[in-house]
Amino acid sequence: MASMDLRPLLQDNGSKIILFVWDGVGGITSGPNGETELQAARTPNADRLAREGICGLLESVYPGVTPGSGPGHLGLFGYDPIEYEIGRGALEATGVGFDLEPSDVAARLNFCTLDTRGNITDRRAGRISTDKSAKVVEKLAAQIKEVDGVEVLWSPVKEHRALLVLRGEGLGDGVEDTDPQRTGVPPLEVRATDDSEETARTAKVVREVLSRAFEVLADEDRANGLLARGFAKKPNWPSMAERFGLKAAVVAGTPMYRGVAKLVGMEELPAFNEVERDVASAADHWDEYDFFFLHYKHTDKAGEDGDFEAKVKAIEEADGALPALEKLRPDVLTVTADHSTPSAMKSHSWHPVPVLLSARTVRRDAVDRFDEIACAGGGLGLRPSMHLMPLALAHAGRLAKFGA
Amino acid sequence: MASMDLRPLLQDNGSKIILFVWDGVGGITSGPNGETELQAARTPNADRLAREGICGLLESVYPGVTPGSGPGHLGLFGYDPIEYEIGRGALEATGVGFDLEPSDVAARLNFCTLDTRGNITDRRAGRISTDKSAKVVEKLAAQIKEVDGVEVLWSPVKEHRALLVLRGEGLGDGVEDTDPQRTGVPPLEVRATDDSEETARTAKVVREVLSRAFEVLADEDRANGLLARGFAKKPNWPSMAERFGLKAAVVAGTPMYRGVAKLVGMEELPAFNEVERDVASAADHWDEYDFFFLHYKHTDKAGEDGDFEAKVKAIEEADGALPALEKLRPDVLTVTADHSTPSAMKSHSWHPVPVLLSARTVRRDAVDRFDEIACAGGGLGLRPSMHLMPLALAHAGRLAKFGA
Repeated sequence: MASMDLRPLLQDNGSKIILFVWDGVGGITSGPNGETELQAARTPNADRLAREGICGLLESVYPGVTPGSGPGHLGLFGYDPIEYEIGRGALEATGVGFDLEPSDVAARLNFCTLDTRGNITDRRAGRISTDKSAKVVEKLAAQIKEVDGVEVLWSPVKEHRALLVLRGEGLGDGVEDTDPQRTGVPPLEVRATDDSEETARTAKVVREVLSRAFEVLADEDRANGLLARGFAKKPNWPSMAERFGLKAAVVAGTPMYRGVAKLVGMEELPAFNEVERDVASAADHWDEYDFFFLHYKHTDKAGEDGDFEAKVKAIEEADGALPALEKLRPDVLTVTADHSTPSAMKSHSWHPVPVLLSARTVRRDAVDRFDEIACAGGGLGLRPSMHLMPLALAHAGRLAKFGA
Repeated sequence: MASMDLRPLLQDNGSKIILFVWDGVGGITSGPNGETELQAARTPNADRLAREGICGLLESVYPGVTPGSGPGHLGLFGYDPIEYEIGRGALEATGVGFDLEPSDVAARLNFCTLDTRGNITDRRAGRISTDKSAKVVEKLAAQIKEVDGVEVLWSPVKEHRALLVLRGEGLGDGVEDTDPQRTGVPPLEVRATDDSEETARTAKVVREVLSRAFEVLADEDRANGLLARGFAKKPNWPSMAERFGLKAAVVAGTPMYRGVAKLVGMEELPAFNEVERDVASAADHWDEYDFFFLHYKHTDKAGEDGDFEAKVKAIEEADGALPALEKLRPDVLTVTADHSTPSAMKSHSWHPVPVLLSARTVRRDAVDRFDEIACAGGGLGLRPSMHLMPLALAHAGRLAKFGA
């Protein structure tokens, strides 16, 4: 569904909104008694807020589509994840907390193994360990710092992955992947996908970077090659201030989520991946912002680990943080998730996420528990997650009437 | 809602999906006890699948819009029926099982009655009987076989309707209807709606065909004229294999449904309009396809006949076929309809249709019966029917994550 331009309706009444994301909290009915993790958890605070508020289900990207963390959060921030797509290189930078400048071009690198004729024998270099990979990246960073006036920056990621950032003026990101997506052939030539001078220059620099890198890596036993993917600049999107009139802050202990929040103009507050301290961080800066995005990671982690019980405990911990948030007296408090991570699937999934919205002006529905099944009968219905932001603005009294 | 291009997310894991369509199964609460036909029917198998699966309601085309069989099915196949519109001529061909070639141009013909001055006195020739109409069509087919190097094919339809197909290279379908939509005036001149050479040639051929036809029909008492509508080529759409990565098969005993399925690239399996034999046909070819569309017609027929009891019986018969489908161990089994056909209305209607989806990865909801009222509270919510296909793909494990 296309998004509506809300700017003509915005009114700043000084109200405050909290978006509390329990990452991956949605599950499937896989528990010992056929229940979800949320159904199994004791969540007296969320249940009370559900009873006094209004609930529903949110779908992030498209029916049946499993959202990555980037798209999942963009939807909650009111940005259609299909329209606002982040290039892989830029997303990778976000993931490791690398602050891209607007003129930077970033790419994701995969270490690979080449045979003596230069053909790829393993596209992931035997999934070398993160430690080992970091050391190889260090070697590259020490020896390749600049090419043709362009600064070359290297950053380790997990296992066989790394980040390459080219910093300089006049660079373009229309460079093709060099990963042939199969073994037995050499890496692809570096090619431009557009005719711009900027891309041509970047392609030339990338060629030289990779050529020098292959020399540096020649004596490595497994990580003796590199494949580059997803050349991209940092997206230049309108901020939440511009689109929704909100001065927004993020409290997220994991770089990825801070990074996505910063792409829509949120400012970063201290965060610890400890929910009490994270809430305190928001409280410390309560007067400075209109909108607070708090990220709780452990629910997703337990889901990815396939640990039903750990996910239940994480949910209960997140629930315990709600009274401290209520004490801040936000005008709107919403609790939801960026996607489901059923522990039975050990991965993100497409299943809609439950949402509760608490505000003075809600029309209370019949939902009296915060879980996926109860929320399916809620007054908010089942909607795209990008509808949450306009609803939060409305309940915060920040949207004027449309038409007379 | 616009449709998302799912191709970048497709992954072929060898899983299998069954779409079992109970044509027109939705009703209104018009039974002796204020119940729908589905509520009145004993459906132990569908009820069990509903209890163990996830349910909802689907809307085919647009809220309040009553779908014809073509659009109703296209939605279920994942094709937005507003975007993928079938020209009337091509639809008519589909309805009588006429296999159009890509270069053919088809039109729907209505026999009409003309007075001695050539003005229309009855636009449907007194709704002459199907038998009588077939005989007149036979006469036309015997006498008009070719015009200007273009093969002219005739096919009877129901009552006053017939199908005209022009077969030859270089034909265009931009020809206007000749039906003035009122009586007291002559049929309209044959006009082109575009400037292409192809359409100009076709218009010339149509003029000659109609002129000769009027001579052939001159001594008929009622069917002494013809009105042509909806000139159209067979649509050239991406197949389900291209859009969804599915090798798909149709088991449908009625030409219309086979025809629509073939427009999206399904292959035709033997079908009998007898549910047990139709299920056996799918079973016989189980290893050859990823997706099976099974069509059950009798529910719609009973609805059109206004026979509440017959529709209840048809539903119970369809329900009886479910265990045999379950035995095939599909990864996803969905039961739904292309539209509602309430027996109280004796026609298709706009009311949303119930849907159930059974798969290992469903989040079970609170629905424990397969009927329109219970499904309204289901976890799938109320959605456009074109969302069913991405959801089926997801539950079959055929969609990768979007974004990181």
